[in-house]
Amino acid sequence: MRAKLGIIAGGGDLPVKLLDACRRQGRPAFVIGLTGSAEPRPEDGVADAWASIGSVGKILGLLRDAGCTGVVMAGNVRRPDFATLRLDWKGIKVIPRIVAAARHGDDHLLRSLVTIFEEEGFKVVGADQILDDLLMPAGPLGRYDLPPALMPDLERGIIIVRALGAVDVGQGAVVAGGDAVAVEAAEGTDRMLARAAELRAGWTVRDGLLVKLPKPNQEKRVDLPTIGVATVEGAAAAGLAGIAVAAGATLVLDRDALVARADALGLFVVGIRR
Amino acid sequence: MRAKLGIIAGGGDLPVKLLDACRRQGRPAFVIGLTGSAEPRPEDGVADAWASIGSVGKILGLLRDAGCTGVVMAGNVRRPDFATLRLDWKGIKVIPRIVAAARHGDDHLLRSLVTIFEEEGFKVVGADQILDDLLMPAGPLGRYDLPPALMPDLERGIIIVRALGAVDVGQGAVVAGGDAVAVEAAEGTDRMLARAAELRAGWTVRDGLLVKLPKPNQEKRVDLPTIGVATVEGAAAAGLAGIAVAAGATLVLDRDALVARADALGLFVVGIRR
Repeated sequence: MRAKLGIIAGGGDLPVKLLDACRRQGRPAFVIGLTGSAEPRPEDGVADAWASIGSVGKILGLLRDAGCTGVVMAGNVRRPDFATLRLDWKGIKVIPRIVAAARHGDDHLLRSLVTIFEEEGFKVVGADQILDDLLMPAGPLGRYDLPPALMPDLERGIIIVRALGAVDVGQGAVVAGGDAVAVEAAEGTDRMLARAAELRAGWTVRDGLLVKLPKPNQEKRVDLPTIGVATVEGAAAAGLAGIAVAAGATLVLDRDALVARADALGLFVVGIRR
Repeated sequence: MRAKLGIIAGGGDLPVKLLDACRRQGRPAFVIGLTGSAEPRPEDGVADAWASIGSVGKILGLLRDAGCTGVVMAGNVRRPDFATLRLDWKGIKVIPRIVAAARHGDDHLLRSLVTIFEEEGFKVVGADQILDDLLMPAGPLGRYDLPPALMPDLERGIIIVRALGAVDVGQGAVVAGGDAVAVEAAEGTDRMLARAAELRAGWTVRDGLLVKLPKPNQEKRVDLPTIGVATVEGAAAAGLAGIAVAAGATLVLDRDALVARADALGLFVVGIRR
């Protein structure tokens, strides 16, 4: 019997996919849905328990009572409003550290959470350690490759995303014809792509690309850049020619569906080594 | 009789204000409205001629025929779609340089335009050289000052905007509680603030600030950061406590109205020296 895994579940499909993988691997798992972030959908019904993000004591207690030794944090979590967050006893104890870390950006915030779980004796693992086919490979994922004409936009995108990442802001940017159409902060990739679509309304030729890269010193267990079918559709709606992400450091959700959609829409999705 | 000034007018109020200032100063001026960027409003009726941004030959000819020696570029101009831009003979001649510059960002693009006007014998001046009360002073502009509790957000905002500026992306960011709520690219400050308002919906306490700074090597004659009444209202709608801009390197439009609105809404607007 393998060690039991606690899945702390935010929004999106990743937590369900992790649970499916655990079941396939015969690995026992316990899912704590985060109130307000994980959407309780009747067809899932995967959460064994629910907790708000401020009830740190409850979350630790649930994990211990369930016999979990490892923990994975997966899915989208909105940064809480610390001023109005309801805290339990353990939450009150750890919140000053979290708020202090949060002042320096999301990556510091997530690192402080990892440290808290580790101090409580849990092993924190990355989603890619459970779902081993989740990581982006190098090269094109589907039928189309990055055209040489877009190399300058790729280079400019890499420079921009690295600059953003170095100050712990975001992981993505849309570049077309050298223009930084949109750069990503708290709104996330999908909203950034929707904005790019508005700004580029009336595009006549697919041009430019979305570049998504991890931050230089990123805590890779909790917040790797992620792409899915919605990313491909958002990039297509913005008139982009494709998507470039870091090979070996990007989670690809629903790979088969993503490739099918990218091929159908004529978009490239490439993993770059940098 | 002072040298005649050509005003190449984009959108917004700045071109009209420049023309008013020229009239007050007894300085002859000739206004070329940029089709698609300057809005022809009946109450203005200020444009002596109209030209599209691709008809560079026409613009140069109009300036020469009008006897202009100096040129000021003022107001918002949307970056054109170079693929569909209609060019005249001179436009065709200079467009390769402009497109090559544009690949490196807006600042390079604007610099290439300045160089083209200078090569044609025009003196390019900044709007602040005409409207001398336009530049932001150091310190608070209205009744409220930056509270000490927001110094960490100001510091983080400065770091973020400098990083953006160094890669020629944008001039602004919204930071609250250490979180990079939104960073600005092609969408401009007003849309970035609208996004911050959406992301911060339900805010209960004014917190955080907008930081706007020129890019490190900015061509200061054509694209200084600008704030106006709409900036104050956008910041208020996003639940921000105020606005920090670079003293001596920011254009303040409608200063009296801006101060009145900021005071009424309880927002600080400060000029910082960095």
